[in-house]
Amino acid sequence: MEAMTFVLFGSTGDLAKRKIFPALYNLFVDSKMPEAFSVIGLGRKSFNDATFQTYVEQALEEFSRNKPENRESVDAFLRSIRYHILNVDDTAGYQELLKIVETREAELNIPQNRMFYMSVAPEFFEVIATNIKDSGLGTTTGWKRLIIEKPFGHDLSSARQLNEQLSKTFAEEEIFRIDHYLGKPMVQNLESLASTNPAIQALWNNRHIANVQITAAETVGVEERAGYYDHTGAIRDMMQNHMLQVLMMTAMTLPAGHTVDDVRSHKKHIAQSLRSISKEDAHKHIVRAQYSAGESNGKALASYQDEPGITPGSMTDTFIAARVWVDDFSWQGVPFYIRTGKRMKEKSTRIVIEFKDVMKNEDICVACDAQPNMLVISINPDQKITLQLNHKNVITGRLEPMTAEFKVGSDNEPEAYELLIYDALRGDATFFAHWDEVELSWQWVQPILEAFADNDLPIHHYAAGTYGPEASNELLAVEGFQWLKDQPVQASAPVAVV
Amino acid sequence: MEAMTFVLFGSTGDLAKRKIFPALYNLFVDSKMPEAFSVIGLGRKSFNDATFQTYVEQALEEFSRNKPENRESVDAFLRSIRYHILNVDDTAGYQELLKIVETREAELNIPQNRMFYMSVAPEFFEVIATNIKDSGLGTTTGWKRLIIEKPFGHDLSSARQLNEQLSKTFAEEEIFRIDHYLGKPMVQNLESLASTNPAIQALWNNRHIANVQITAAETVGVEERAGYYDHTGAIRDMMQNHMLQVLMMTAMTLPAGHTVDDVRSHKKHIAQSLRSISKEDAHKHIVRAQYSAGESNGKALASYQDEPGITPGSMTDTFIAARVWVDDFSWQGVPFYIRTGKRMKEKSTRIVIEFKDVMKNEDICVACDAQPNMLVISINPDQKITLQLNHKNVITGRLEPMTAEFKVGSDNEPEAYELLIYDALRGDATFFAHWDEVELSWQWVQPILEAFADNDLPIHHYAAGTYGPEASNELLAVEGFQWLKDQPVQASAPVAVV
Repeated sequence: MEAMTFVLFGSTGDLAKRKIFPALYNLFVDSKMPEAFSVIGLGRKSFNDATFQTYVEQALEEFSRNKPENRESVDAFLRSIRYHILNVDDTAGYQELLKIVETREAELNIPQNRMFYMSVAPEFFEVIATNIKDSGLGTTTGWKRLIIEKPFGHDLSSARQLNEQLSKTFAEEEIFRIDHYLGKPMVQNLESLASTNPAIQALWNNRHIANVQITAAETVGVEERAGYYDHTGAIRDMMQNHMLQVLMMTAMTLPAGHTVDDVRSHKKHIAQSLRSISKEDAHKHIVRAQYSAGESNGKALASYQDEPGITPGSMTDTFIAARVWVDDFSWQGVPFYIRTGKRMKEKSTRIVIEFKDVMKNEDICVACDAQPNMLVISINPDQKITLQLNHKNVITGRLEPMTAEFKVGSDNEPEAYELLIYDALRGDATFFAHWDEVELSWQWVQPILEAFADNDLPIHHYAAGTYGPEASNELLAVEGFQWLKDQPVQASAPVAVV
Repeated sequence: MEAMTFVLFGSTGDLAKRKIFPALYNLFVDSKMPEAFSVIGLGRKSFNDATFQTYVEQALEEFSRNKPENRESVDAFLRSIRYHILNVDDTAGYQELLKIVETREAELNIPQNRMFYMSVAPEFFEVIATNIKDSGLGTTTGWKRLIIEKPFGHDLSSARQLNEQLSKTFAEEEIFRIDHYLGKPMVQNLESLASTNPAIQALWNNRHIANVQITAAETVGVEERAGYYDHTGAIRDMMQNHMLQVLMMTAMTLPAGHTVDDVRSHKKHIAQSLRSISKEDAHKHIVRAQYSAGESNGKALASYQDEPGITPGSMTDTFIAARVWVDDFSWQGVPFYIRTGKRMKEKSTRIVIEFKDVMKNEDICVACDAQPNMLVISINPDQKITLQLNHKNVITGRLEPMTAEFKVGSDNEPEAYELLIYDALRGDATFFAHWDEVELSWQWVQPILEAFADNDLPIHHYAAGTYGPEASNELLAVEGFQWLKDQPVQASAPVAVV
């Protein structure tokens, strides 16, 4: 791995403290950082190098999976860190930054490889990119790269504008758009699950799959993000990025020995194959909802409207479910149901693949008590792959479900940010969102955004602490399906509707 | 379930003591016997009803999974039992037996439903059947059935002769030929595994399966059965019956909602599809071997030749492996490798389904470190289904095997004999060997028996406590395969050759 300078905009922010510095430190401990590197933190807060290093050490104490216990190792890591006060609008400040970068490059005798990381509010993305270019920071004899956090635009046109601005400073292959769902080990596993397992590959198509259900359910409400969330909603916060990325990862059918380009071109192909939902038809395929008051484990939960910081009468979606058709030879006729919501009954991010029951399709009910075969990829909080089949109880002669779990990964596993930053440092863009994917996602979402804005479809309500509105179940009922849990409630019981 | 009289020939024998009486008692405890029934034990030993009941109780103490602890229940069971001394050649004795049977039927006021069970040496099968007919025992106003133990013949012609004799007294649908492998829960599971699981059904053919490996390995030697075994060998003791039955159960492709007749016709179809191995070609497809001295866990093991009771210079096979082709549309090109042996390294009865690695077939080595996908059905001593797939370690980027286990059944589960006797009492022949299957199995085996007799193929030797002779590995190497263990030795290690 090549020596480099890691320039972190927003280094005093929450994400830097919780994720980025711990990731860098864990990579360092695991010998996955370059032999020589420096980290330059930028922010408006008043730190000097020493106080900032102390601040970083405290962040590691609190948030790193490897605690900063080995003094020698911690000191070595902290010694790589510098801090510079920067107002992102201040062009002179970038000149000072350039000097610091060059000084550090000289001190360490390393090439001008520069990783810029934008961990700042989106309104600063463009000005930072412009100043990187104008200041000469982006003119290097080595490589330069940009890691950029979400949100990448607020709608199709703002995303296009942002990308146009960034592309004046960075080429597409230099831009690493973070979608931290792509850093989750079980999502990364989708790259190899079908492509390296002939027994799965054989089933990974519309001949054998009845439907795909992608759920990202949170139990929390809007918490401290009310101001941001109320202008964003589940569709922008989760659906346009994470959910569609997971859908692409699930539906892509990679060739063996695939490259990064293969992953990107197959994901793009899926994104292009998403059947458009017109503004007029949105009500048929999309369910939007907002949580009302409810309870969880006997604890009363406020309605969204009553959360602090929410505009009275807000129509913001805290839940969205969609029926998505992928017009591709492999997936024709297989509905992808996606749903995401806040204040739901359980915290669970998972993909459920329901296999076709050939007999059911032929209107003969041979094993009426049989549950569908299903493969469940649990992403969060559990990480596992579960296969559910049927077997005949030799004593009762009845069909019963049987499940087996593939446990993947270990306890002290790298976090998403470690995996992603490590990949970016190596220049591996497999698990980053390409502009094509982002643009196509916004393109697909745009008519739905407009339908929301114009109230072309109702906003349902669901009690906080439940699985969302009944309309979400009705969405699947159209094709005769229901949301599946990853484990049967009890042997031979009907599949629970969640 | 209809009231009946259970007439047990060989009631003082080892099988009756270890398996049949415990099975009857456990069925009784589980309320799976008819409300009214009587059991009449026959033998040459000197018992009266009371002493025989005591003898049975001792057998239950020793061998039953439900111990005879509830006095009331034990007494009720024992009260159903009578004993009669019978020399199987003595026609007068059958008249006395008929009187006893009729008396008990009158006492219990039950119909003339009679279950005859031959748990005797095979030389007595025919004379007993003849006497059942001649004595009038087989002339009933209710049903009559015959449960008969193995061996069903010693070769094709003796099997045909036996069946001809039996059929003078019993119709085919009245004969329940025990193959206790068909009573093992995991073998019974094969009836439903593919037919009720679309995700398995889709893979259950030559498009996706590379080969099937059926192993029945014992660690024991010939023990007290030397005299019998030395005239039998692995081919007759295991291959012609159990191994071919398991092969049929694995390869049959049942329609949904199948009946007993479907099971039988599909098994027959597989038996008919076994590609004949001529006497001349036997050496190409069959490996026979005998164990020489060896060791297990540091304990020296004698060679077969040195076991007490073995004829000096015996050429009897204690191990046999075969490559079997099933000339059927589903299985064309899929070798079924079967092997069974005594004094092997581990006790294990299992079926390994190795899935095709499509990439491997195309001479491109994309994931060279990937192990094949496989489904392992462990029959004994563990009962489980294991699926092995690959996943990419997100940290190392390397492919590693991952396995998941379906645990089927419970701890205090019915034994094979309980399941089988229960089925026979209900008249369900699903898990019994039909004459067609038996005849076709002998027909397939006959040229091999002749090749053995004429020494047309070598007898290999393997050290006791190993996985058999090297020739057994070479058999698979012809098609580029190897015997697979059900678990990888370690992550990313090459698949162990066993």
